[in-house]
Amino acid sequence: MSEENQLTDAEDLQERLAEVHTLLARHKLVEEIVHRQEGPRHDLVEGIVHKQHLQELQHKLEPMHPADVAYILEALPPDERLIVWDLVKAEHDGEILLEVSDAVRESLIESMARNELVAAAETLDADELADLAPDLPQGVIDDVFRSLPAEEREHLRAAMSYPEDAVGSIMDFDMVTVREDVTLEVVLRYLRRFDELPDHTDQLFVVDRDEHLKGVLPLNILLVNEVEVEVGSLMHTEFVEFEPDDEAEDAAKAFERYDLVSAPVVDADGKLLGRVTVNEVVDFIREEAEQEQLAHAGLAEEEDIFASVWDSVKNRWAWLAVNLVTAFVASRVIGAFEDSIEKLVALAALMPIVAGIGGNSGNQTITMIVRAIAMGQVQPDAMRRLLRKELGVASINGLIWGSLLGVAAWWLYGSAQLGVVMTAAMTLNLLLAATAGVGIPLLRQKFGADPAIGGSVMITALTDSGGFFIFLGLATLFLM
Amino acid sequence: MSEENQLTDAEDLQERLAEVHTLLARHKLVEEIVHRQEGPRHDLVEGIVHKQHLQELQHKLEPMHPADVAYILEALPPDERLIVWDLVKAEHDGEILLEVSDAVRESLIESMARNELVAAAETLDADELADLAPDLPQGVIDDVFRSLPAEEREHLRAAMSYPEDAVGSIMDFDMVTVREDVTLEVVLRYLRRFDELPDHTDQLFVVDRDEHLKGVLPLNILLVNEVEVEVGSLMHTEFVEFEPDDEAEDAAKAFERYDLVSAPVVDADGKLLGRVTVNEVVDFIREEAEQEQLAHAGLAEEEDIFASVWDSVKNRWAWLAVNLVTAFVASRVIGAFEDSIEKLVALAALMPIVAGIGGNSGNQTITMIVRAIAMGQVQPDAMRRLLRKELGVASINGLIWGSLLGVAAWWLYGSAQLGVVMTAAMTLNLLLAATAGVGIPLLRQKFGADPAIGGSVMITALTDSGGFFIFLGLATLFLM
Repeated sequence: MSEENQLTDAEDLQERLAEVHTLLARHKLVEEIVHRQEGPRHDLVEGIVHKQHLQELQHKLEPMHPADVAYILEALPPDERLIVWDLVKAEHDGEILLEVSDAVRESLIESMARNELVAAAETLDADELADLAPDLPQGVIDDVFRSLPAEEREHLRAAMSYPEDAVGSIMDFDMVTVREDVTLEVVLRYLRRFDELPDHTDQLFVVDRDEHLKGVLPLNILLVNEVEVEVGSLMHTEFVEFEPDDEAEDAAKAFERYDLVSAPVVDADGKLLGRVTVNEVVDFIREEAEQEQLAHAGLAEEEDIFASVWDSVKNRWAWLAVNLVTAFVASRVIGAFEDSIEKLVALAALMPIVAGIGGNSGNQTITMIVRAIAMGQVQPDAMRRLLRKELGVASINGLIWGSLLGVAAWWLYGSAQLGVVMTAAMTLNLLLAATAGVGIPLLRQKFGADPAIGGSVMITALTDSGGFFIFLGLATLFLM
Repeated sequence: MSEENQLTDAEDLQERLAEVHTLLARHKLVEEIVHRQEGPRHDLVEGIVHKQHLQELQHKLEPMHPADVAYILEALPPDERLIVWDLVKAEHDGEILLEVSDAVRESLIESMARNELVAAAETLDADELADLAPDLPQGVIDDVFRSLPAEEREHLRAAMSYPEDAVGSIMDFDMVTVREDVTLEVVLRYLRRFDELPDHTDQLFVVDRDEHLKGVLPLNILLVNEVEVEVGSLMHTEFVEFEPDDEAEDAAKAFERYDLVSAPVVDADGKLLGRVTVNEVVDFIREEAEQEQLAHAGLAEEEDIFASVWDSVKNRWAWLAVNLVTAFVASRVIGAFEDSIEKLVALAALMPIVAGIGGNSGNQTITMIVRAIAMGQVQPDAMRRLLRKELGVASINGLIWGSLLGVAAWWLYGSAQLGVVMTAAMTLNLLLAATAGVGIPLLRQKFGADPAIGGSVMITALTDSGGFFIFLGLATLFLM
């Protein structure tokens, strides 16, 4: 974060966005008037008036923090977004591209010429560049690569080589290292030679001649001790370190558990490679949470709310297709019992209740279990215990809600037998939901799959088809 | 975080948990054997063997970080959890209570005597105590309150007075302040008088005689500049500050945007009250995400996976009840068309598809809109634009998937008219879903309600009942 940027609180940011909106609206209005005007003075008027609001806009945007500009870009519809992007991009375009969402980033990059992109990319550090690289045309990456000094190039190659969920992909290479046999005074003198320390420097890394990490020296310790003391006698030797292939999720949990600001990343030999900082961890946590939320609703990726209709259709079709298939299967289950429904049409009205409550209850169970697995609270031997408990919950719920609905069915259709079938079907479907809610994530975990993915679809498919089958099956057996 | 604690990575933590499990299992086994043994040597054997594994366990747990102990406690079933809790609690009980989840915290607090709780609470800072206070018996809070020095008492009173989603509830009172007219040399000498600086001290707060905040001095700046320079000429005057009544969510977003480690909290007159640190922000973000995930599946609160069946039933009943009501309404909608279903039983098999796809599509829309609102991307005038787009998406999806299903219906039941009704009903229900998906969150936002809450239930209720009504209604009009 460079010093001269304005920092804005939430309210101010909203105001600023409103100002941008107003200026853009005025600009459009003037443009329309100018275009409508004919005759010799046309060019003159255009020259004077046309650019006025854009200049005011640029003046407003200039001092803003790249993250705030990114925020404003995301809140604008495509045409206005590109007008604003043209006004700001020369300044901090690389940083702004880093801050905007993936969907918006694409639209901005599309609007840029190759040389603009190269210039933007060259202002970034290797780790930032690696984040941006997947969205850049290959030609731009090649150009940037060639222009980098050897060390940076190595860093970029390293940063780009790690998968998105590995520590390597959130690490940076900005760190301050010191030797253990020097005094704090020497360290302080050394630091004064910097123009500025890397962001989030809360500790210095103590390394030997071969860059092996020996310990960490928190600034906290550096500042409260006498300057004659040697680094080696003060440094912490008990600290968290990661390797680049470690899961970023585990690193995030360590940051949370131990309240870290930065942590070193070392290779298998203990050689210092880089560090992870809390700001990257915060972004990672937020992105994970969002990803999960989107996946839960069946959105393939983050959607620019101003995306075209067609982009939205593409983003959503896979999930709808999957649900169509499961709904179709459920429909065929019902189809198999059409004779029974023809004889007792009440079944058609009651069956969605059995299926629906099963789905809700199953989703409660699976959410709880997936969360417990993610927190590491589920031991391999826990299946039996968890199943017993969930079956208990399902039995109670089945008897309570099932009886209630059984009575309702009896009252509505005047058949006590129908009520009993309803109660029994509800209870059985809830037991099915509980079994699946425990079993699906635990089995996925056991076979090395992500327990969180697709569980909700599977369980709903099961409780729908299963619910219809159980209810219509019992009805056919006992009421026909 | 005190220095002497072991820090453990994710894998080690799993190993440690396995060791705890093993030791507890051995302990139980020995206990059983001892209990079965009769005769004079009984007490002797018990005295020697019985405690052996527990001592080993205690030895293992002692050097662990409170957050890691908390993790292990959460992963143990209730009886074993209390055995482990008894072994550790004297040491860091306050800190551990802070780290465990709400559900587990309750069970631990229940097991403690009043004097133990008071002793535990007294080891905490005011802001930590305030976090714990809602779970403590009133008597314990009163005792602690009386034992605090006047300043701490004031802090505690302040910290407890803010709602959970306000900045005040995540702020602490540990900060280092300096005056602007002193040199860096004086500051460095002053810092050396501390035993340690507060955690997450990345900047000092520059205040005047009346504690009004004039600027901030990042340690970064302090360390790279010559010691003769005065604080006033180096301090940043452009910085983010919060008031205690600000939304914690807005503060979290500012931390994300500007990559902050700490930020000052001031009162309306600009007087420094405390600070917010990134570790609290990380916890807040994670909790928010979890809360949302739980609410989405209809779980009232975080559930201890070892909770009793009865506790689980209580945690889940409200959501099931709401869904039961909406399912019942949908069932009555079907009930109104029983004559039509009796005449054409295919309707019963096809209707859940129409309802189901509508629900899925509506949830996609609402998730996208709620997210965009949360990111501040939706302006008050955006409703029309968003609605137009979503209706476009719904039309395309309706025609594609609806036609597919229409053809399937035609092929299955040999009626082209039924196929057309199916296609039309699908399209109409998707349009309904799109309208509700845009309208519900935007209207909730307009009337000051949280756009995220309950949207999913509402939209599913609407697309279920609506889908049945549309499909059966069209069928009755055109096929009967």
